[in-house]
Amino acid sequence: MENFDFYAPTKILFGRGKSASLMGEMKPFGKRVLMVYGGGSIRKNGIYDTVKGLLAENGFEVRELSGVTPNPRIEKVREGVAAVREWGAQMILAVGGGSTVDCSKVIAAGSVYEGDPWELVKNPSLIQGALPVFVVLTMSATGSEMNPTAVITNPETKEKQGVHSSFLFPRASALDPSCLYTLPPIQTASGVADTMSHVFEEYFKATEDTYVQDKLCEGLLKTCIKWGPVALTEPENYSARANLMWAATMALNGLCACGKAGKWSCHAMAHQLGAWYDVTHGAALAVITPAWMRYILSEDTVERFADYAVNVWGFSRDQDAFTLASMGIDATEQFFMDCGLPTHLSELGVGEEHFDEMARAAVPYANLDTMAYVPLKAQDVAAIYRSCL
Amino acid sequence: MENFDFYAPTKILFGRGKSASLMGEMKPFGKRVLMVYGGGSIRKNGIYDTVKGLLAENGFEVRELSGVTPNPRIEKVREGVAAVREWGAQMILAVGGGSTVDCSKVIAAGSVYEGDPWELVKNPSLIQGALPVFVVLTMSATGSEMNPTAVITNPETKEKQGVHSSFLFPRASALDPSCLYTLPPIQTASGVADTMSHVFEEYFKATEDTYVQDKLCEGLLKTCIKWGPVALTEPENYSARANLMWAATMALNGLCACGKAGKWSCHAMAHQLGAWYDVTHGAALAVITPAWMRYILSEDTVERFADYAVNVWGFSRDQDAFTLASMGIDATEQFFMDCGLPTHLSELGVGEEHFDEMARAAVPYANLDTMAYVPLKAQDVAAIYRSCL
Repeated sequence: MENFDFYAPTKILFGRGKSASLMGEMKPFGKRVLMVYGGGSIRKNGIYDTVKGLLAENGFEVRELSGVTPNPRIEKVREGVAAVREWGAQMILAVGGGSTVDCSKVIAAGSVYEGDPWELVKNPSLIQGALPVFVVLTMSATGSEMNPTAVITNPETKEKQGVHSSFLFPRASALDPSCLYTLPPIQTASGVADTMSHVFEEYFKATEDTYVQDKLCEGLLKTCIKWGPVALTEPENYSARANLMWAATMALNGLCACGKAGKWSCHAMAHQLGAWYDVTHGAALAVITPAWMRYILSEDTVERFADYAVNVWGFSRDQDAFTLASMGIDATEQFFMDCGLPTHLSELGVGEEHFDEMARAAVPYANLDTMAYVPLKAQDVAAIYRSCL
Repeated sequence: MENFDFYAPTKILFGRGKSASLMGEMKPFGKRVLMVYGGGSIRKNGIYDTVKGLLAENGFEVRELSGVTPNPRIEKVREGVAAVREWGAQMILAVGGGSTVDCSKVIAAGSVYEGDPWELVKNPSLIQGALPVFVVLTMSATGSEMNPTAVITNPETKEKQGVHSSFLFPRASALDPSCLYTLPPIQTASGVADTMSHVFEEYFKATEDTYVQDKLCEGLLKTCIKWGPVALTEPENYSARANLMWAATMALNGLCACGKAGKWSCHAMAHQLGAWYDVTHGAALAVITPAWMRYILSEDTVERFADYAVNVWGFSRDQDAFTLASMGIDATEQFFMDCGLPTHLSELGVGEEHFDEMARAAVPYANLDTMAYVPLKAQDVAAIYRSCL
């Protein structure tokens, strides 16, 4: 096991009606709240009215910043910073999914920074403070509600950049599984694929004796496999929503990564699909992941994949390791298909025309050639893309 | 899943040499450190010298409070509070196991409280602040290094009382698995049994849809089963010590308990053995746990025990549930025996003379008659004690 630090000071308020408890967490920080959200979905499903009602009941003054998009943009961050400064907001309340939370975090840091907030994204050591951020989570996948990370896009420079700082932890996040009842099936499925991918990226790493972490990873994967299909057929099944919601948070609050060396593989490859084509993150991961697994299967990795097949999918150990490994990979692909996710790039309207360029960009994005579980050069990445056609 | 709050803001510094990193965490809080520890073991194994050297190198001034005993006493807390006040200590550094950490936490809270610290133990709502507490962990079992709990004994009133307050979280804890290399085998084994018991107390609860938490519990139990025997035969096996150390922290940092209703059973029964006889906590739990499992096995609980047998011990599902359940319970008992732990009260010099009194005391200690997984009256507890003879 590698040395590690674990730190996750966000208070999680989990369960039905927990947005109300969030108000008590906010009160010590003042009265003036900038409420940040995305499009119209929280107006349709009633969460907007609920939160506005709670804020009014509890004596908060509220200004709103709406229109946060998927892949939140630095321009929206700047707009939020300006709103905070003009009015003197004392805290940020993010009501939404990962994009809204990410945008809110960087607004919070940008509000106490003199320069342009994009500088903070490019150089997180400049972050020396932030307004308190609170979260009402309405979509579950990115884990942003309990981690110190945000991903912000700058269309001018064509950069999509992750930023980490301990000042970016939300103070408290309300996770009410019933807020997920109205999610469209494709978003539920994408959230499941995204959660599983976050776990895969840690589970398939070269450090061998991280047993506690590996058992946690296996448990989170089994959670997705058991409860994902339930949530898809019974959108208002509370147990399914609750287990998936908590699994998504646990997948990316740092626990799965403890003591493991190396960087992620599939996110770097999927990211290029997002950058070149209008492909949703979860769908891109569902396509890339099984192809990547098949590509890196070898004498060196087969025991890991066999463990995966046995411990996650429940296949019997009395088969040779390569057979087991393939069974596990096939089961992964079939699972994504059964969830209604694409498993080939052709389903996403992606052709092979840019594979070489995308592959060359993917490698440096996450040092795939040196830091990946199985090191990948540009020609390997291009081959993985081709195998997904 | 029941509604829950999860909050664990302690920073964990895990790995070889991590005590050195702790110094950086301490620096913002001042210069004057009260170093709290137990008996002579940290002098023998070199940890005392290492920590003293680090403190000196980093410019800290140090006073020492030694002699913290197992089942730490309120008198030692008072001594620590007096030392803090007399000298103006700015923080507490606990170097030891759960007892030392627990004692340090209540010293830290008592130092900023006007009255007697026993009042804080009896009424935790009086805790409104605490000096910062830091930890160098030298024995792994109680989880105190990452939770807001302390257990303090008052010999005058014959009370052993747990106290919880969010002010009692350590700021940062250094967990270096190599600090455990010199533990006597019985302490290693007791730590494993204690960790497993903390997990059992959560795993065997009536809430049925806490799937994420149950998979975590199973993973932590499997960790103990795999690595406990390795640590006993190879005390300097880093992987074994690291996984056991992290499992002990994870077992009691609140994650296993998320979303589950009800109270613990075995700790209440084992506690009486500690109160009436000089029995170590881990040994008492090793005796009580399999007996309790057999006693509560019924049509209502058999599926849970069958899951335990399959998911933790790896028995094949193709047997009837009662057979599986018994196999799991027998395996638990055999595991404790193989670790060198007692499995009968006679091995501990405990006879049946006080069983009825002990049973009457155990029930109200944790509301066993209303809040336990399977409710237990005094006659049930006495029957469990008798079955351990």
